[in-house]
Amino acid sequence: MTMFMDVHHGMAGITAEQLKAAHEADLAVQDREGVEFRQAWADPESGTVYCLSSAPSKEAVQRVHERTGHPADEVHPVPLQI
Amino acid sequence: MTMFMDVHHGMAGITAEQLKAAHEADLAVQDREGVEFRQAWADPESGTVYCLSSAPSKEAVQRVHERTGHPADEVHPVPLQI
Repeated sequence: MTMFMDVHHGMAGITAEQLKAAHEADLAVQDREGVEFRQAWADPESGTVYCLSSAPSKEAVQRVHERTGHPADEVHPVPLQI
Repeated sequence: MTMFMDVHHGMAGITAEQLKAAHEADLAVQDREGVEFRQAWADPESGTVYCLSSAPSKEAVQRVHERTGHPADEVHPVPLQI
């Protein structure tokens, strides 16, 4: 499993409730892709959301996000962490 | 204190040792700005590095990174987290 950071743009005005709902939707379907979403951070002002996950591939991360209606604009493997 | 996610581009080929050295350089000078770097992730292929910190301001985060020779390309407050 590799760690991935994915980024969503265009989410200006996102609320804590919306972030929670989106994250929970991902958690509800992630098992079928072998993905585990760990953390998420949002900047409502610039409309940027970052999600950290462990997953078998970039495509698996994207499939979860697509299934829950919020495809990521970027998905980067982040094999180095500190 | 607010949480911030900052992003560095153009770091293609970064190694685990280089990420560690950069992070430790930030830790060594962060106190004077009231910044606390928490985690960092790197994608050596696309050359992207993400750093998570808590800090009094975006400018304080950037001042630490500038002082240690690796200014961030983006610094976003991420007041929402899950």
